[in-house]
Amino acid sequence: MKLAYLSALVLFAALPCTAQTTQPAIEDFKPASTNQPGRQYPQVNSEGRVRARIVAPQAQSVELDISGVKYPMSKRADGAWVGDSTPLDEGHHYYQLVIDGASFPDPGSTFIYGSGAWRTAIEIPAKDQEIYALKNVPHGQLRELFYIAKSSNTQRHCIVYTPPDYDKDPGKRFPVLYLQHGLNENETGWGNQGHAGLIMDNLIADGKARPFIIVMENGGISGSPGERGARAGAAPAGAPAAGGGRAGGGRGLFNFSAFERTLIDDVIPYIDANFRTLADQPHRAMAGLSMGGMQTRQIALAHLDTFAYIGVFSGGSIAPANIKDMDSVKQKVKLVFVSYGSREVDPAARRGRAGGPFGGDPKANTDALKDAGVNTHYYISPQTAHEWQTWRRSLHEFAPLLFKD
Amino acid sequence: MKLAYLSALVLFAALPCTAQTTQPAIEDFKPASTNQPGRQYPQVNSEGRVRARIVAPQAQSVELDISGVKYPMSKRADGAWVGDSTPLDEGHHYYQLVIDGASFPDPGSTFIYGSGAWRTAIEIPAKDQEIYALKNVPHGQLRELFYIAKSSNTQRHCIVYTPPDYDKDPGKRFPVLYLQHGLNENETGWGNQGHAGLIMDNLIADGKARPFIIVMENGGISGSPGERGARAGAAPAGAPAAGGGRAGGGRGLFNFSAFERTLIDDVIPYIDANFRTLADQPHRAMAGLSMGGMQTRQIALAHLDTFAYIGVFSGGSIAPANIKDMDSVKQKVKLVFVSYGSREVDPAARRGRAGGPFGGDPKANTDALKDAGVNTHYYISPQTAHEWQTWRRSLHEFAPLLFKD
Repeated sequence: MKLAYLSALVLFAALPCTAQTTQPAIEDFKPASTNQPGRQYPQVNSEGRVRARIVAPQAQSVELDISGVKYPMSKRADGAWVGDSTPLDEGHHYYQLVIDGASFPDPGSTFIYGSGAWRTAIEIPAKDQEIYALKNVPHGQLRELFYIAKSSNTQRHCIVYTPPDYDKDPGKRFPVLYLQHGLNENETGWGNQGHAGLIMDNLIADGKARPFIIVMENGGISGSPGERGARAGAAPAGAPAAGGGRAGGGRGLFNFSAFERTLIDDVIPYIDANFRTLADQPHRAMAGLSMGGMQTRQIALAHLDTFAYIGVFSGGSIAPANIKDMDSVKQKVKLVFVSYGSREVDPAARRGRAGGPFGGDPKANTDALKDAGVNTHYYISPQTAHEWQTWRRSLHEFAPLLFKD
Repeated sequence: MKLAYLSALVLFAALPCTAQTTQPAIEDFKPASTNQPGRQYPQVNSEGRVRARIVAPQAQSVELDISGVKYPMSKRADGAWVGDSTPLDEGHHYYQLVIDGASFPDPGSTFIYGSGAWRTAIEIPAKDQEIYALKNVPHGQLRELFYIAKSSNTQRHCIVYTPPDYDKDPGKRFPVLYLQHGLNENETGWGNQGHAGLIMDNLIADGKARPFIIVMENGGISGSPGERGARAGAAPAGAPAAGGGRAGGGRGLFNFSAFERTLIDDVIPYIDANFRTLADQPHRAMAGLSMGGMQTRQIALAHLDTFAYIGVFSGGSIAPANIKDMDSVKQKVKLVFVSYGSREVDPAARRGRAGGPFGGDPKANTDALKDAGVNTHYYISPQTAHEWQTWRRSLHEFAPLLFKD
C-alpha cells in the first residue's frame, strides 16, 4: 500500500500528456519566463510546446526530457541541437537535456529544487497567471532562516513569508500557515516554483485574504538542505502511513514521525519565539501538496490543539472513518480543505495512469465529512494534473478561507 | 582604459593556478560541501584538488572546466568519466563540465549565480572557514524582496540581511551597509557564495561587530533577476569611469550612473521606508567587490552626505588625487577600507596575469590618503586571488570597523 502510493506519485510525473507529434508547431515561440537572464532558449509557443536548443557540435544524440517523456532533438548546420515537445499543460514542468546518455539541467534555465535535485523547469504561461504575477502592490518578504533545532541538535534551513505590513506595526501579531512541499522537493519549492509569496501579496492587496505568516520547512523525506552540517546526509526525517487520511503514526517510507516531532518540538516554538505570531490553535493552519498533504493529514489530526485549519492538496482526503474522535474534530477543526487537479480525479483523463486520488474518492470523502458536521471545502483545478499549477491554485483558493475570526 | 579593466577581471578568472599535474593525487577525496544533497561527486582532497565524475557512456570527450582551465577526464569501465584538477586555492571556484563540446553545470553541485549565469561552483575547505560556519549562535535572516522601483518603474529583486535581534526590540533602529557584487554576478552572490549572513551572525555573537542591516542589490551591469518583468532584458543599469577612484559620472561599460540613480532614488528610500533603519549619513556604509568596489568608490564619493563608510574589495583604491574636495571627505568619511587578495597585489604571484590592482598601488594610495587625514584601513587576504575567499575575509575585516559611534 505504501509502495503503491509512491508509485502513483512517480508515475503521475512520468507519463506523457496528450501527444500531438503529427501536428506542425505554430511558429510563435518566445523565450520562457523561467529562462536565465538574457537567454533566448528554451522557448514556449502559444500551444504550450517547448522548444529546446543546445550547442553540442560533437554530440551523437540529444534529447529533451520533460518529466520523463523524451522528445528527439536534431542537429542543425551550426552545431546546435533543436527539438520541440508536444503541447503541455499550463504551468510549471521539470525538464532536462540528455546528451549522449547523460542527463543535464539546461544551462538556459534557472534552477529550482524538484524530483530530488536542483534542476531546470519551464513555465508554460497560464490563463490565470495573474494570481502569481509580480504587481505594483505592497510586497511581503521571503525570509531565509538558518538555525539549529534544539530537540534534535540538527541544522535546519527554512523559508518564511511575512506579509507586506508585518514590519509596519510592531504591536501587531499574525496567524501562521505551515505549508509543506511534496516528495523529493524541499523548503524552497513553495516560494520558488509555487510563487506562494506573490499569490499572498496579490490576495492581500485585493482584500481577499487576511495577512498571515507562512512557514515553509523541509519535510525531510529526501536528502535536502533542510538539514545541513552536523547531520547533513544522515537519516532523513522519514515518512507516513499512507492510509486514506489515517491519523497517527506510520512505518516505512511514508513514516513522518521524525518530521512530526521536529515540527511540533522545534519549528513551531522557534517561529513563535522569533516572529510576532498569534501563538494559539485558532491562528495556526497546516497544509501541503502531495506528500506534504499526507503529512498535514497525519500531523494536524494528531495535534488538534495545535492546528485549526487543514489543507490537503493532491495528497488524499479525510473520510469520517479516518477520524478517531469526531467530537474533537468538529469542535476544534475550523476547516478541512481538499483539492486535486482535474486530471488526477477524472478517470478519462487518467487513461491508465497508475495512482489517481489517494485514499478513496476525495469528493465523496469530503462530502461525508461535511455531512458529519465538519466545515469542508473541495476544489478542483481545471485541466491540470499532479503538478505545481494545481498547487498554486489550491493555495489561492485555500488562503482566503483561513483565520476568519 | 575601461576595456583594460574588463580584461583584467576576465583574465584574472581565466588563468590557471599552480599546475602540479605530474604529482599523483592524495587519495583522501570527500564529497564537496557545495554538493547537492546526497551526491558523492564532485569531491575534494586535502591538497585542494577537485575530482569530478559524470556518467556519460556515449560521450566522446568530457572535460572539467574550472574558471576556464580545462582538465581532461577519462572514461571508466562503468561508463562514468572521472578527472582531477590540480590543487586549487582555498575557497570558492566556479566550474562546469564540457561534454562533447557543450558546457553544462555539474548536476552534482548546487547552483549559484556567477560569471553571467546560474552555474556550479565548488568549495575547497579553507583554514579559516570558521568565520562563515553555521554555528549554534543567534541567527539573522536573509530576506528576499520583490518590489517596483518608483523612479524607473522597474521590477527589482533584492536580498536584505537583518541581524539576529532585529525583531526582538521593535523600538530599535539599525545602521545599513549597501554591499555590492562583482561583474556578471548578481544580488544573490553575497548571501550564497559570500556567506555574508553567517559571517555577520558569527561576528555579532562574538561581540566583534555592531548589528546592522545589509542590503544586497543588483548592480545591473549583466542581465540578471535584479530587474524583471516590464523591463527584464532591457538596458542594464550601466557602468562607470574606471579611473583610479575618480568620483563622478563616467561612460561606456563601466558607467554606473543608472545604478547610482536607482540606489539613491529608489533603493535607499525603499529600505528606509520598510526597515527600521538609522536613516542618516553616519549610519550608512557602502562596499563592494571588484566592479562593486568601483561602484562604491564612484557613488559613495559622489554622495558624501549619504554614506560615511566606504569599502573597496579588489576594486581599486582611492588616492588623494582622486578626491576633488578633500575637506569634505576628511569631515564626512569615517573610514576608507581597501582590500585585495595577496595574489592580486604580489607581482611574483601574478606571473604575467593581466590586470593586477586597478588604479595604482593600493597600499601607496591608501597610505597617502591616511597621510592626508582620512581614516583608512588596508587588508590583504593571504594566498588568495580575485575570488570569493578574498571577499568573505574582506567583509569579516570590514564589518567590525563600521558604525563605532
